[in-house]
Amino acid sequence: MAKLYHVPLSPFCRKVRLSLAEKKIECELVEERYWEQDPDFLRRNPAAKVPVLKIDGKIMAESSAICEWIEEKYPEPALMPRSADARYEVRRIVAWFDDKFHQEVTSKLLYERVNKKIMKAGFPDSTNVKAGAKAIKYHLDYMAWLLDHRRWLAGDNMTLADFAAAAHLSALDYISDVDWNRSEVVKDWYAKIKSRPAFRAILQDQVPGFPPPAHYADLDF
Amino acid sequence: MAKLYHVPLSPFCRKVRLSLAEKKIECELVEERYWEQDPDFLRRNPAAKVPVLKIDGKIMAESSAICEWIEEKYPEPALMPRSADARYEVRRIVAWFDDKFHQEVTSKLLYERVNKKIMKAGFPDSTNVKAGAKAIKYHLDYMAWLLDHRRWLAGDNMTLADFAAAAHLSALDYISDVDWNRSEVVKDWYAKIKSRPAFRAILQDQVPGFPPPAHYADLDF
Repeated sequence: MAKLYHVPLSPFCRKVRLSLAEKKIECELVEERYWEQDPDFLRRNPAAKVPVLKIDGKIMAESSAICEWIEEKYPEPALMPRSADARYEVRRIVAWFDDKFHQEVTSKLLYERVNKKIMKAGFPDSTNVKAGAKAIKYHLDYMAWLLDHRRWLAGDNMTLADFAAAAHLSALDYISDVDWNRSEVVKDWYAKIKSRPAFRAILQDQVPGFPPPAHYADLDF
Repeated sequence: MAKLYHVPLSPFCRKVRLSLAEKKIECELVEERYWEQDPDFLRRNPAAKVPVLKIDGKIMAESSAICEWIEEKYPEPALMPRSADARYEVRRIVAWFDDKFHQEVTSKLLYERVNKKIMKAGFPDSTNVKAGAKAIKYHLDYMAWLLDHRRWLAGDNMTLADFAAAAHLSALDYISDVDWNRSEVVKDWYAKIKSRPAFRAILQDQVPGFPPPAHYADLDF
């Protein structure tokens, strides 16, 4: 069986978990405290990051490269459209979340509030937390603008772009940092994606010391 | 004709320029001082980053999404292998350079020494410069390890992975921050890629206030 080395709230791990689950690829989850630099783990991935996926005799790192590989090896159900233009749009939005959103929001809220405590790396920096809380509004508005024109973030079908976005937002929702009342279309989009069977395991995640709010796993939030 | 909004030493822009040139797609270069947040430019790309490519009636951002699009629309000569496993390895290495190398090396050397001056954002932080100068050694050793096993970084053919790496290293070489004597195989690899016609325009780049060293454009460096 495939094995995924991960941490529960990592958006990059969640994106891979969603891809695997959507394609019904069974996978054992192994929590990996990568910041403790266990030598065995470093041998699996010299970049010392999660996710690391062990599958079909291969060991892989880098979430986007992993998701493209999964898509090419397990094409059904498709998470990438067919045309080059539509595929570009998916990849652009994945990069938007994994780069820009991650830098402006996820690293400023989740990493300050949760990772620092787990890694024993000090207290949240309130300047960062404030900046992240401000930036997420702009990103939710950008999503709303996209969803005013499309059923899903990158077009009329659900794709990896939706999983990348939902991976970040679900991790932030675990610490109540998403204002779902800001936009009706974004809330509807999240309700749709949250109710997919592929999302179930993510809604059951529990991080010791950080109990999730009641609405986190509620499909009718 | 295609138009690329870029800055000359940006490794992300260089990666796209190399892809376009290798495929002989003619392209006009437009320098874009993106940090000045010109409203016209922001309209082209809400992420306010370069590169932005205008081609075939489309406007595109995010260098890796652009390069995958170019590959799909203009497949010859191929910069991606055929098998899913080999494609994974290309994407992993592209991400290695654009994420890890960028964060540990490029942002610590090039951005401190050059971008800060051009953007009038203060003086180089010597702690960062020292960290970058130390980290590049480890990355050159990792490249040497890969190249001991393979002709090119991701396998036996030249791919996007080589362009991603060469884009970062050439920008750092412009400010003499690469020690080519550290590894014979890495130097040989760079000599091979540097002598390709696709590399010519990059070797002619000139940044006002930062004249390149003599060896920068020398194919026999």
